[in-house]
Amino acid sequence: MELHERAILPKGFRCASRNCGIKEAGKDLSVFFSAVRANAAGVFTKNKFPGAPVILGREIIKKGMLRAIIVNSKVSNVGTGGKGIENAGRMAVAVSKEFGVPENEVIMSSTGVIGKQLPIEIIENGIRGMSETLEKDPVVAAEGIMTTDTYPKALSVSVDDAVITIVGKGAGMIEPDMATMLVYILTDAEIKIPVLDEMLRDAVRDSFNMLSVDTDTSTSDTCVIMANGLAGKVDKGRFSETLKFACIEMTKMLARDGEGATKLLLAHISGAKTADEARIIAKSVINSPLIKTMAYGADPNIGRVLMAVGKCSDCDVRPEKTEVRINNTLVYANESRVNFDEATVRELLGSGSVEITVNLNAGSGCATAYGCDLTEGYIEENAAYYSS
Amino acid sequence: MELHERAILPKGFRCASRNCGIKEAGKDLSVFFSAVRANAAGVFTKNKFPGAPVILGREIIKKGMLRAIIVNSKVSNVGTGGKGIENAGRMAVAVSKEFGVPENEVIMSSTGVIGKQLPIEIIENGIRGMSETLEKDPVVAAEGIMTTDTYPKALSVSVDDAVITIVGKGAGMIEPDMATMLVYILTDAEIKIPVLDEMLRDAVRDSFNMLSVDTDTSTSDTCVIMANGLAGKVDKGRFSETLKFACIEMTKMLARDGEGATKLLLAHISGAKTADEARIIAKSVINSPLIKTMAYGADPNIGRVLMAVGKCSDCDVRPEKTEVRINNTLVYANESRVNFDEATVRELLGSGSVEITVNLNAGSGCATAYGCDLTEGYIEENAAYYSS
Repeated sequence: MELHERAILPKGFRCASRNCGIKEAGKDLSVFFSAVRANAAGVFTKNKFPGAPVILGREIIKKGMLRAIIVNSKVSNVGTGGKGIENAGRMAVAVSKEFGVPENEVIMSSTGVIGKQLPIEIIENGIRGMSETLEKDPVVAAEGIMTTDTYPKALSVSVDDAVITIVGKGAGMIEPDMATMLVYILTDAEIKIPVLDEMLRDAVRDSFNMLSVDTDTSTSDTCVIMANGLAGKVDKGRFSETLKFACIEMTKMLARDGEGATKLLLAHISGAKTADEARIIAKSVINSPLIKTMAYGADPNIGRVLMAVGKCSDCDVRPEKTEVRINNTLVYANESRVNFDEATVRELLGSGSVEITVNLNAGSGCATAYGCDLTEGYIEENAAYYSS
Repeated sequence: MELHERAILPKGFRCASRNCGIKEAGKDLSVFFSAVRANAAGVFTKNKFPGAPVILGREIIKKGMLRAIIVNSKVSNVGTGGKGIENAGRMAVAVSKEFGVPENEVIMSSTGVIGKQLPIEIIENGIRGMSETLEKDPVVAAEGIMTTDTYPKALSVSVDDAVITIVGKGAGMIEPDMATMLVYILTDAEIKIPVLDEMLRDAVRDSFNMLSVDTDTSTSDTCVIMANGLAGKVDKGRFSETLKFACIEMTKMLARDGEGATKLLLAHISGAKTADEARIIAKSVINSPLIKTMAYGADPNIGRVLMAVGKCSDCDVRPEKTEVRINNTLVYANESRVNFDEATVRELLGSGSVEITVNLNAGSGCATAYGCDLTEGYIEENAAYYSS
């Protein structure tokens, strides 16, 4: 499977974005629009302080049909009580009027600071006229949903005659829990709602749900897929596989652009007793600040991998069976470092992409987690996020 | 209860430390010695890659009697297989010879880089002659066990005629799991072994086990208590309470000196459905990188507290009932920010000690977790720990 060189929108989809005035400068409002009604599915944050758009979104998605998605950045509409719910609803109403689509087929998202009310009149004014600025390039919409992202994120992949396009954002407060940051998946394939829902959950489990930038689970995580059917039927197996591939590619894009990140980290766990244990251990490795800083500094302190594997104290981990590889080079086996050479390990860790592979030799469970290094950039970004 | 102004050793205890040559400069070897046999108890890391001293220590502590503790810093003797076990044993033998005490009444610890073998001959040479340099000041021993600690940590508190003294170290790889970093507790109170063991576990549960600098659980965590009885019997209730108080004070010292830390963080959770849920939520708040950086920058981004409470998705958290206070000032209630004033919140967060109090109004469970802010200092320290 291969990504398109440039992301495109599938048949029948258009998008637009603009600065409506929530941010002083830079785009802060995006819309996705399908010319025909699309089958839809979605997953949302499990955080117990879900944003108002998540609370409404869970209801809207039950019908399984969408025409449009509206997203603002800068203010997340979380922790805002009844007024927040009302404001989220007004976003859908504004889109309904502007695009002539049913109110209950518009889903909304907001991302940014928690605890502030939305400047709803500004957003309503912003939505007005957007139907006349629709474009074919998904990067346009990706631009309007950025917060601390350093670049807009969109990708496309083909399956049979259909295209799957994913637009996403997310750089901090990223450890999705049965859901994801803001990710919108658009396809012109024809797929029934329950099948779409199952495929989405399956893809998300092995992609976005295995991503962690900083262990903090956002209150706004939302992943929605729209399938408008304009490209006709596709092979289900191939579509499902391609969807997961595309989600994993987007996961890597998000990881690599984690706040302050300079490199992509991957933790591959194999030989775990169960797949669940593999997932727990992969997350432990990808989340360890000591491994993240080791990768950042290319410091050959590989014993930290043992620490992060071993702290999963409820899992079947046996030192005498455990093997560790960095970018495919064996560095630990038989309870001791193997061919350990500081300069070599330093070089392996110096790569722009660091893959830590741990074979536990205890069973057949495997999992991969995605993350990034931890740098001064993360601190700078987050010691003054509200203020900036 | 009040700490002594200066830490002292209880009756019958002496200690010594020196540079034996593991570090290029600075002390790297400490010993604690009791003139008479002491009752003892200990708890150790649950990490599945325990250090050789932890593996041996678990056996030694079963007897419940100790005469001495020997500790080296710089190399942790973890991930070192059979040779590591042999070297840990040789440390006890060397102390046995030097101090004329039974080999199986000496417990050993090692702290530092994981995966390297101990330079055991250097350590054996270093132990020779230490019995002639014994001193009364516990800070002497605290100096020999430091790694990235910025100052030696020791404290004393009285209970009846007895003294409890705690010497500890720990600055990174700190989220003890049913155990703790390296902490040694010495007392001249007379307490039976099973009672001592129970009191230790009880104190550790609410102190060291509620501490997290960076979510990473060390492979060497060890907390040992020695009670040599020279001050006679004490009131059990008072001793147990005082022990917990002293452990909490040491926990705060360790938190405040977390790698790169500029301030102490406390997360008080009350009104949780159960004590266990309170502990989970307190840990979530204290471990959130976004809260840690908010505290560092005194950035009034208090919505992040909601995020960290809400991501405990298996706990009973209801937005409409949740109240948040920063250093005793109410900032969130009834699903919205209360009297929110940026300058005020900035001032509250600017304090050297930031207490985040969350009342969930869902039950009577409560817990406090201890931690520190996250700064560029942590990154600098850990991007080149092995190399430095």
